Amino acid sequence: MIGPQFSPDFMAQLDLLFRWRRDVRHFDTRPLAAGLLDQLLDQAMHAPSVGYSQPWRFVRVCTPARRNAIIAHVEQENARAASLYEGGQRTAYDALKLHGLKKAPEHLAVFCDIGTATGHHLGRRTMPETLIYSTVIVIHHLWLAARAQQIGLGWVSILDPAKLIELLDIPATWQLVGYLCLGYPAEAADVPELEREGWEKRLDHQHTRLQR
Amino acid sequence: MIGPQFSPDFMAQLDLLFRWRRDVRHFDTRPLAAGLLDQLLDQAMHAPSVGYSQPWRFVRVCTPARRNAIIAHVEQENARAASLYEGGQRTAYDALKLHGLKKAPEHLAVFCDIGTATGHHLGRRTMPETLIYSTVIVIHHLWLAARAQQIGLGWVSILDPAKLIELLDIPATWQLVGYLCLGYPAEAADVPELEREGWEKRLDHQHTRLQR
Repeated sequence: MIGPQFSPDFMAQLDLLFRWRRDVRHFDTRPLAAGLLDQLLDQAMHAPSVGYSQPWRFVRVCTPARRNAIIAHVEQENARAASLYEGGQRTAYDALKLHGLKKAPEHLAVFCDIGTATGHHLGRRTMPETLIYSTVIVIHHLWLAARAQQIGLGWVSILDPAKLIELLDIPATWQLVGYLCLGYPAEAADVPELEREGWEKRLDHQHTRLQR
Repeated sequence: MIGPQFSPDFMAQLDLLFRWRRDVRHFDTRPLAAGLLDQLLDQAMHAPSVGYSQPWRFVRVCTPARRNAIIAHVEQENARAASLYEGGQRTAYDALKLHGLKKAPEHLAVFCDIGTATGHHLGRRTMPETLIYSTVIVIHHLWLAARAQQIGLGWVSILDPAKLIELLDIPATWQLVGYLCLGYPAEAADVPELEREGWEKRLDHQHTRLQR
């Protein structure tokens, strides 16, 4: 046996965490306890990164003017996205709640420093995109760590990264990977919202696997 | 309280899982139990995906000729990568073991179907790269699910995706995201190999955070 062995009870609870990880769009306005966000980020920084590059950078967005400008931008982009659907699909789209930016007590922008020298470029000569991938994984890590402490996370992608970079005044080599809401969920769900609302079904796993 | 509450004991175990997740490059040749890889993939498919697009596609590479061709390709690319370092850094690079492709009982290529219509393009008009990000997250999900069952995973990025696509004969819309080794680890470690070997240090978290 190499390393810790996990009990069947732990694995059942881990499975529960995976199922309840969910993208949360309905938040309570209750703030996170002081220091909790930093603690979650500390935990997320145990994520793997290509060549140990640790390229993730976090920007906590607190200023009301900045939060509001970002919300206005997302609503504008969402209206544009809606206009691409027609008929019943448009009606279905309009009925979906796609972000919880207004109520979520925390907004967190996550960037990848594509100019970092940490890790001395190991492992990313042929696939430089792995630097971004490492940042994606730190977000997923944060998602799970947060959920384990009852905190929901929602990832908002209906936005123009260039606009966010302009609004947040960040270093030139940082590339936006995700804009996140965090807070206590206002409703319970262990099924994806888009599945509950009939937008899309769970894919049959047989369609995702080949052997060579 | 919304959804399940996790105990302090579970959270301590989860932290242990996060620390032991590690990129594994030293494998035992013992095969995975029949059906275990499929079970881990089933669990990984609870990963989030943009607009519920579920774009992940998995190719289990079993044929010895294909495995060997991929190993030969990675060794060639690794020699090229090594040639970019000089002096002491070259010596340090050469001493690193960067993949466990030869001994690992399972090779798994993970693709993103960038042509998928699942999810009806929701959430990815302004950031189409989120489709790839969803596939990155399914890999991290698999990594954690595997480690909870004592299975180590190593992500190999020292390769040319175009070469892999040629060797594996896969559908035209599938983009390679990661090439993975899976198997029982042959050594115990809860510290990244590149940190143990002195290649790079853990980043001070204060350098990764801003407030706006």
